[in-house]
Amino acid sequence: MEATPHAAAEAALTEQVVARFADTPDPRLRALMQGLVRHLHAYVRECEPTEAEWFAAIQFLTDTGKMCDGLVRQEFILLSDTLGVSMLVDAINHRQSTGATETTVFGPFYIAGMPDRSAGENMALTPGTPALVHGRVFSADGTPLRGAVLDIWQTAENGMYSGQDTAQPTGNLRGRYRTDDEGDYAIRTIVPVSYPIPTDGPVGQMLTSTRRHPWRPAHLHFMIDASGHRRLVTHLFNQGDPYLDSDAVFGVKPSLQVAYEERPADHPLARRFGFDGPFREARYDFVLDPVPKAGD
Amino acid sequence: MEATPHAAAEAALTEQVVARFADTPDPRLRALMQGLVRHLHAYVRECEPTEAEWFAAIQFLTDTGKMCDGLVRQEFILLSDTLGVSMLVDAINHRQSTGATETTVFGPFYIAGMPDRSAGENMALTPGTPALVHGRVFSADGTPLRGAVLDIWQTAENGMYSGQDTAQPTGNLRGRYRTDDEGDYAIRTIVPVSYPIPTDGPVGQMLTSTRRHPWRPAHLHFMIDASGHRRLVTHLFNQGDPYLDSDAVFGVKPSLQVAYEERPADHPLARRFGFDGPFREARYDFVLDPVPKAGD
Repeated sequence: MEATPHAAAEAALTEQVVARFADTPDPRLRALMQGLVRHLHAYVRECEPTEAEWFAAIQFLTDTGKMCDGLVRQEFILLSDTLGVSMLVDAINHRQSTGATETTVFGPFYIAGMPDRSAGENMALTPGTPALVHGRVFSADGTPLRGAVLDIWQTAENGMYSGQDTAQPTGNLRGRYRTDDEGDYAIRTIVPVSYPIPTDGPVGQMLTSTRRHPWRPAHLHFMIDASGHRRLVTHLFNQGDPYLDSDAVFGVKPSLQVAYEERPADHPLARRFGFDGPFREARYDFVLDPVPKAGD
Repeated sequence: MEATPHAAAEAALTEQVVARFADTPDPRLRALMQGLVRHLHAYVRECEPTEAEWFAAIQFLTDTGKMCDGLVRQEFILLSDTLGVSMLVDAINHRQSTGATETTVFGPFYIAGMPDRSAGENMALTPGTPALVHGRVFSADGTPLRGAVLDIWQTAENGMYSGQDTAQPTGNLRGRYRTDDEGDYAIRTIVPVSYPIPTDGPVGQMLTSTRRHPWRPAHLHFMIDASGHRRLVTHLFNQGDPYLDSDAVFGVKPSLQVAYEERPADHPLARRFGFDGPFREARYDFVLDPVPKAGD
């Protein structure tokens, strides 16, 4: 980078833009915009993009916006995920140290309003390895939480979520389960599979041109709500998945891995949950963070 | 911000993402992506957006992409312009010190392939204050440049460019002029007016919520090409415009201001350029930067 007078003029431009946001009435918005200007300008000053590079960036952002549709394809979330920004925002917003279950990315494939399901109901309408995922939901002090809602979503064996894949019924591998009086939950489903994030858009081009693979380790999405507790958004990852160390969206944490263990057809849980052959069992207990009460 | 262990884990995440770009074959792309990750993460770590704020940013970027159309509305350029990034990229890429005319933003309203016009031809098909803009184009050493192409665009009196405003003929207030053997150019047009950048999209919402006005001082756009010289993209701003100190896109430089002086109907230039009443005259000479020859 050249020294004065160019560097001085360029720094003055940054301060001129920062000052232009000084009258923002909302102090939080003011801080977010002024911080954005300072960091964005610092990036430009450090990397010194050519005009062609800058236009390529404009085109990339434009294409990313065009790729978004209303329901299930949100290419900017995918971009945020693949740049590790979503996980960083997640980390900053979940610095709890109460022993609550760790969080991970929300991802772009959630659909609200999926069917309410009874305990142990099978949410898989498409084939796969039958599985039972069950366990309990507790508050941080060990109290079981009754009536907690577990909103679940995962891909089919073809690696696509319902909504992405028009061949799947909308509610396939999605649904809302509730804990019973003992805080127990039980989900009948299929064993999750690893899958590539969508590569037919700008984010896919970015991964290709940087030699990054698009794979996510197999996982089941959870969004858990219980009265008086912070919402928990997380995944359970399959132990032993080959992509645990290189998740395309940086979402893996050691505490969120679970084994899907083989169970025979005559296992006691088979009759209870209606399995008519061998199946896999995964057990996981969740711990939710209480919302501090006034005066705490 | 909290100290260890959260800060350490968050810094480790940034380095994990940076490392993921290590195999990018193109070293320039690798540097741009790794720099982007570092600066973007630094912004997130400093401003600590809530999840709601982060989703609002995702939605803002999505809306910005949706607002872009193929021809004349490029909301991401507008965003880059209003955050001062376009001017910073411009500054970094035009650190010439040869005495060449200064540059300013390209803006989102250029249309390629507009009519070739003869010297002094009137490019205004809509009403306004008649004006002659003329002068010479030189190389940095003072040699007049013949056959330089000046591609010009400006708004009509309603503040809209052709392409934005379907009521205007496409070539209105646009066209390509050439210098003659003495390096002279002459444009018949109307005096530019100040105008607001489009406020019906996300950038307009950003300006409103930060109490920024959307106005640009009146100006005429130039893109000048001459053999053996760097392309010059600049504006001429009207001297005395009330928005010279607060251009919504930070484009103004003192050296790019020009007076539109009143001339009577019997002025010698009136007959030569076909004015049938009083008009304004602006004179400006451009200086282009030679492309260094091999061995320079």
